[in-house]
Amino acid sequence: MVRRSSKRKQNQVKGSAFKLPQLDAEQSSNLFTPLEVLRPEQLDQIHDASMRILEEIGLEIVNERSKALMVEHGATLCSKTGYVLMDRALVMDKISTVPSCFKMHARNPKFDRMVGENYINFCPVASAPNCSDLDNGRRTGNFEDYCNFLKLGQSFNAMDTFAGYPVEPIDLHPATRHLDAYSAFIKLTEKPWHCYSLGDGRVEDALEMIKIARGITDEQLKQEPSIMTVVNTNSPLKVDEPMLDGLMLLAEYNQPVVVTPFTLAGAMSPVTLAGALAQQNAEALGVIAVTQMVNPGSAVMYGGFTSNVDMKSGSPAFGTPEYAKAVIAGGQLARRYGIPYRTSNVNAANVVDAQATWESQVSLWSATMSHGNLIKHSAGWLEGGLCASFEKFIIDIEMIQIMLQTLKGIDVNEEELALDAIEEVGAGGHFFGTAHTYARYETAFHTPIVTDWSNFETWEEKGSLTATQRANALYKQVLENYEQPHLDEAINEQLDDYVERRRREYGV
Amino acid sequence: MVRRSSKRKQNQVKGSAFKLPQLDAEQSSNLFTPLEVLRPEQLDQIHDASMRILEEIGLEIVNERSKALMVEHGATLCSKTGYVLMDRALVMDKISTVPSCFKMHARNPKFDRMVGENYINFCPVASAPNCSDLDNGRRTGNFEDYCNFLKLGQSFNAMDTFAGYPVEPIDLHPATRHLDAYSAFIKLTEKPWHCYSLGDGRVEDALEMIKIARGITDEQLKQEPSIMTVVNTNSPLKVDEPMLDGLMLLAEYNQPVVVTPFTLAGAMSPVTLAGALAQQNAEALGVIAVTQMVNPGSAVMYGGFTSNVDMKSGSPAFGTPEYAKAVIAGGQLARRYGIPYRTSNVNAANVVDAQATWESQVSLWSATMSHGNLIKHSAGWLEGGLCASFEKFIIDIEMIQIMLQTLKGIDVNEEELALDAIEEVGAGGHFFGTAHTYARYETAFHTPIVTDWSNFETWEEKGSLTATQRANALYKQVLENYEQPHLDEAINEQLDDYVERRRREYGV
Repeated sequence: MVRRSSKRKQNQVKGSAFKLPQLDAEQSSNLFTPLEVLRPEQLDQIHDASMRILEEIGLEIVNERSKALMVEHGATLCSKTGYVLMDRALVMDKISTVPSCFKMHARNPKFDRMVGENYINFCPVASAPNCSDLDNGRRTGNFEDYCNFLKLGQSFNAMDTFAGYPVEPIDLHPATRHLDAYSAFIKLTEKPWHCYSLGDGRVEDALEMIKIARGITDEQLKQEPSIMTVVNTNSPLKVDEPMLDGLMLLAEYNQPVVVTPFTLAGAMSPVTLAGALAQQNAEALGVIAVTQMVNPGSAVMYGGFTSNVDMKSGSPAFGTPEYAKAVIAGGQLARRYGIPYRTSNVNAANVVDAQATWESQVSLWSATMSHGNLIKHSAGWLEGGLCASFEKFIIDIEMIQIMLQTLKGIDVNEEELALDAIEEVGAGGHFFGTAHTYARYETAFHTPIVTDWSNFETWEEKGSLTATQRANALYKQVLENYEQPHLDEAINEQLDDYVERRRREYGV
Repeated sequence: MVRRSSKRKQNQVKGSAFKLPQLDAEQSSNLFTPLEVLRPEQLDQIHDASMRILEEIGLEIVNERSKALMVEHGATLCSKTGYVLMDRALVMDKISTVPSCFKMHARNPKFDRMVGENYINFCPVASAPNCSDLDNGRRTGNFEDYCNFLKLGQSFNAMDTFAGYPVEPIDLHPATRHLDAYSAFIKLTEKPWHCYSLGDGRVEDALEMIKIARGITDEQLKQEPSIMTVVNTNSPLKVDEPMLDGLMLLAEYNQPVVVTPFTLAGAMSPVTLAGALAQQNAEALGVIAVTQMVNPGSAVMYGGFTSNVDMKSGSPAFGTPEYAKAVIAGGQLARRYGIPYRTSNVNAANVVDAQATWESQVSLWSATMSHGNLIKHSAGWLEGGLCASFEKFIIDIEMIQIMLQTLKGIDVNEEELALDAIEEVGAGGHFFGTAHTYARYETAFHTPIVTDWSNFETWEEKGSLTATQRANALYKQVLENYEQPHLDEAINEQLDDYVERRRREYGV
């Protein structure tokens, strides 16, 4: 005992015993009954309106193979517009094969995660063109920052998967950027990751690379969802060629496709929330139906991203009341169909300040309490997605850990009810010194990572730092202490060989 | 149309047309089903433990009149400790007369508010010894700042009542401070207010002053709750003399007493949440029972304030997972007994930064979704209650307005579902120009007060201001544009006469 304690002390002096107070890496689930903002009859009305959109207006499917497949399954083409029409019986029949839950397989099984039902998963910001920190300000995305975000995502147990490039590594050649980016996912992290559904070529690379990383065959891959993609509709009512190419290939391989209409009310969807939700639902279910036509039972998610634009500037707004209501209503819709639900932790602030934080919290509470199963962009998102912030990453982790602890509920039993301690202390006393407190004080409460509860005087003495400034110090400390996870040498070589061969084939 | 518009422009130039985009002054209610963190059997266990505390350990009642009243109603005294013991049948019988809802009467009936059931009410920070803004930093409370917080509370429709001095006016003589403070409540605001339950002398002054302000008799006052007080227990298990003197007088007058145990887990209550909640429940119900012994049916609230201390420093922590769970569990307990529920919007940050904001949001979502009927400290609280911040006041108003808009739900009907507009726009188009959008764009979405949705470049050009800096400008603008509400001249004189007479009687 003494030996261990003295060793720990020694390590701390050397600075090598950096210990992040964080939750265990584990599957999280949600004990709350989901919030509902729509009354049952309102939910019916939105469902009905979305069915009328699919029956009477249709979707523009800019992909001949997809269109042919849909017609083969019973869809028709509008004689006037050429849009694909599906009647509600067809849509309901097709989506009836969607699994309500699936397991995402990681290269380290410790990070396998269930997605659906009452399970909840968080992943970092994705697809930001810029990144920033307090030291170097705002800059165009690059591979070094990309890798640093991956290291943070690997380091924090609150992050379950990746769901896109945290920041776009613009300094890499666009033709082969995905090879480097996917390779980094595999080498720097052990968690499930994501490929972009942009044509089937790059998706094929992702499938090959995940097979190498996990050491599995085509057949096993088809049994085990291991890689995820997001398919955004080109709202309103349009689905683009490369997205559908990727979707068809991934659905064939039973790899989860997250179908997310981009329905900003007032711009790409009606200015009214009910209309935006009806359109979201039509687009989501129409495209989800395609995945089931390709491969009945393949893993898929219902994505909700309805928010509003600021009608004065046309800018997207996030973390608004409209966003909160749309997220909660989206959860009701997804549950109606038994489809796992994807939401987001978003904000539209330009700096890691109070606005960034309250908009994120509005998003996070709505996303969690609507039973989002995958909460995208949950750490680091800023500026409506145009910037990935290192400080915001830390602050989001803090907020997510608070939420995850809240989801654990309360233990109630004789020991926890502590009547003996209450009797022992009596009226007007205090509990600091009781045996009941002493036995539990180190683990009784959640330990935060960047919160400062000092009194004002102590806080001033320590330099009057804001949470954002403390987050800056912490993210660098975590990166300094990051350890690259083990990867079998043979796999590493095989992966490098694949990347080099493909790089030559792409002519880069 | 042209004339109005040109007049408006002219006014804006003069600066006299300051128009705050804010919600209407109205009664708010909560459409969500309350969140529940305790399973039914856990709720039973906590109830049972709290009954055992009241039956077997008891409360130390430091007030002979209260103690005698309790014994008269069937309580007994512990032979060992002298604490008052109540068996569960007695407690349940006494609290059965508590009204599940009451109306708070304001001097302007526009601000009358229902408290209980599904109604939700917000009030500003109370009882901070210090205040701060960016211009003048942190300072000891004074009457000028006190009045400024009252003016803000009057100006913002999101504030329903006051529930204590926003900041303590330390520069006023302590013996007569309450006369000036109550007089300011009446003159500067039209909303219901609060008196401190510190002995019956000052409470008598409050009752006399509210009767003058509303022009009502003793009898009408007894029918119409008009003034509120908070009774904190001296946890654990002790209730002090002056609190009980005030409580007895106010209960006699059917004025709402908010009974709030101060159960910080690990300090004034067990380190375990279940134990802290059992103790909170015992203290709350025990004291609520006294109000009903004084006057069956008198208005009373169940206050929950359980949080945890930071076991490293002993500092109170707020907006933690423990706080969120305790608030949600507290709502379940209050609903079990059909008693209106008081919660709080709290944080322990020293500066209006991300931490202040996320801790407040955790509090605000928990308080709202647990169906808090009165959310105290909801605007301006900082530093665990040691400081009232003018910038935080504005940021809290923004967050509360987002919440209130979320509570309004979604309109769903044919017009809102907008299928015609969706058909008109077709695939790949946009909704900016449609008649459906044009008819609604000005009012479709919530308008914030301090949020900035500019893109990064525009935000930089405007000076790269944080939300806290923008809040600083806005609070001053609101104060500049504050207009003192009308008060009948006769009432004004009567009030001044009363204050001057009492000031002489207090010998100041």
